Amino acid sequence: MKWNITPPDPALAAAIQHKIDTKTKPLGALGQLESLAQQVALVQQTLTPELRRPHVLIFAADHGIAQDGVSQYPPEVTHQMVRNFASGGAAINVFCRQNGLGLTIVDAGVRGSLTDLPAVRHEKLAEGTQNFAHTPAMTAAQCADALGRGARLADELHATGCNVLGLGEMGIGNTASAAVLMHLLTGRPLAECVGRGTGLDAAGVARKLAILTQAVAAHPALDPADPLAVLATFGGFEIAQLCGAMLRAAERRMLLLIDGFIASAALLVAARLAPAVLNYCVFCHESGEQGHRLLLAELGGQPLLRLGLRLGEGTGCALAYPLVQAAVNFLNEMASFASAGVSDDSGT
Amino acid sequence: MKWNITPPDPALAAAIQHKIDTKTKPLGALGQLESLAQQVALVQQTLTPELRRPHVLIFAADHGIAQDGVSQYPPEVTHQMVRNFASGGAAINVFCRQNGLGLTIVDAGVRGSLTDLPAVRHEKLAEGTQNFAHTPAMTAAQCADALGRGARLADELHATGCNVLGLGEMGIGNTASAAVLMHLLTGRPLAECVGRGTGLDAAGVARKLAILTQAVAAHPALDPADPLAVLATFGGFEIAQLCGAMLRAAERRMLLLIDGFIASAALLVAARLAPAVLNYCVFCHESGEQGHRLLLAELGGQPLLRLGLRLGEGTGCALAYPLVQAAVNFLNEMASFASAGVSDDSGT
Repeated sequence: MKWNITPPDPALAAAIQHKIDTKTKPLGALGQLESLAQQVALVQQTLTPELRRPHVLIFAADHGIAQDGVSQYPPEVTHQMVRNFASGGAAINVFCRQNGLGLTIVDAGVRGSLTDLPAVRHEKLAEGTQNFAHTPAMTAAQCADALGRGARLADELHATGCNVLGLGEMGIGNTASAAVLMHLLTGRPLAECVGRGTGLDAAGVARKLAILTQAVAAHPALDPADPLAVLATFGGFEIAQLCGAMLRAAERRMLLLIDGFIASAALLVAARLAPAVLNYCVFCHESGEQGHRLLLAELGGQPLLRLGLRLGEGTGCALAYPLVQAAVNFLNEMASFASAGVSDDSGT
Repeated sequence: MKWNITPPDPALAAAIQHKIDTKTKPLGALGQLESLAQQVALVQQTLTPELRRPHVLIFAADHGIAQDGVSQYPPEVTHQMVRNFASGGAAINVFCRQNGLGLTIVDAGVRGSLTDLPAVRHEKLAEGTQNFAHTPAMTAAQCADALGRGARLADELHATGCNVLGLGEMGIGNTASAAVLMHLLTGRPLAECVGRGTGLDAAGVARKLAILTQAVAAHPALDPADPLAVLATFGGFEIAQLCGAMLRAAERRMLLLIDGFIASAALLVAARLAPAVLNYCVFCHESGEQGHRLLLAELGGQPLLRLGLRLGEGTGCALAYPLVQAAVNFLNEMASFASAGVSDDSGT
């Protein structure tokens, strides 16, 4: 699959900055909201950006590695939480309702049937991945299929008029998968990439690290410079579908809301395939998961929130969304020094 | 004036924490939103808190010290910005509209008449303070009057059913005033308290520091252990009204949304008069103004946002408000492990 992502044309940047700088506020006084306004306007190639039909996609899937005890919670929680999403009781439901974002739940590869739930989109590739401690998590064909399915979901949302896409996930064991992707694609020591996940204690983290160290050693022929091979070997179906959705959404010039550690690992794969995807990304938060700070640095991302969240589901996207709205709204609605008759002695 | 603020009864804390911990998420996974939910529930003494009629008060006033060139902007900008607030063109108007907060603009002591603006509440104590480089900024009687007027505004909002109060300000020169209040009431060196304000360069900051060092020396009889005397000598009418509003709102058990450096300096005075006020405060952001980080540490405040904002007006309150809503909403709306049928192996 070839991804055709072009960075936004920077020709408009100076005009956008001038509009920001002549608003009735001291130069730079809206801090990070100003760089965000610049980014959104540039992505949309307009001085008057609009956020339309913001939507969160949650991809859920199970992980073979979860059988080895890398998580505080048992694997069946993935399935149970999808049912919780479908009935509106999870954190992401609450935050999407509050802030006016649509929500689609995708079964990317959860164990057990979820076809009784009309609210769930069925894109199941298998009943969870293989256990990468022994076997590649998925085949190359499954990986390509997952990317394509994620891409198609982004296309469908784009066709409805959506131009802001939040990307979330659920999958017991998926911080383990994300940690290995980060390790292989950045070259950072695995110990920097492995964290507490849903709440392991120090002994649990040490055990997770030992299991993952062995797992990496079990695939000596893998080329870490081949992002698709790394994704197929150690990824999850939700991570691969996330990656496909991100790439296609950036092709469509949608704004991407990036959540926590796992979504960032999916983005890391995407960025290795097509670096221009990063121009379209808003980094919603720095999570409490060890490794996310370093992963954000690797991606060049400056997060909007630092609340110690470590939940996933896209919750960081839904929580940060009002800040994205604020960036757009100040650009569109604030008076300028000239229009308000306010003295501007600041040199603009 | 005597302030009767009692801390919330902590008896309910364990029940609130149990409710938080049995929601369908890993223990602690909502990070700072969890401590915020705990605080709001405790302030309201209920397991099902509600945010009602959230409102921002902006107090505006002029400062005698502004004549000495402590700001990047000329003093008439205070008056011009009040007109901008009244016509809806400032950042705070945009963010209050976006997030559903009411807004009241208070002329606490702006130079020049604003009585032609029906949207402005007239609580003008004088045409700006005296220049504290030479003279106390206000008399003790004016200071008491200002506290009382701020308190009355909080009372009026409380009477409408409002239980969340954001507190903002506008006043060219007021970072100078706030810096001296911080210096005297915390004992920190003035150089740590003085910053760029609306955008001074390094030479401007040095000049501001020199002016304020002289100003402090010009009042050798002032007792820094007397918060009201410090406020009267170096405060502003907007800062004193903010302080009164904060104290009364805490008496009424309203939740206080604290904005940036100047609002925090007003809170510092309030906390020296009645330390229990701090139990009612949500610290909305850490501003880009030098000194605010230290001031927050002094107040024991953990900010929700760190976006490098340095605008005032209550903008941090309006921007952080959706996070306060999110804290309340997850507590009220999320399913529990038991109600959702999700396995909880985390030890709760």
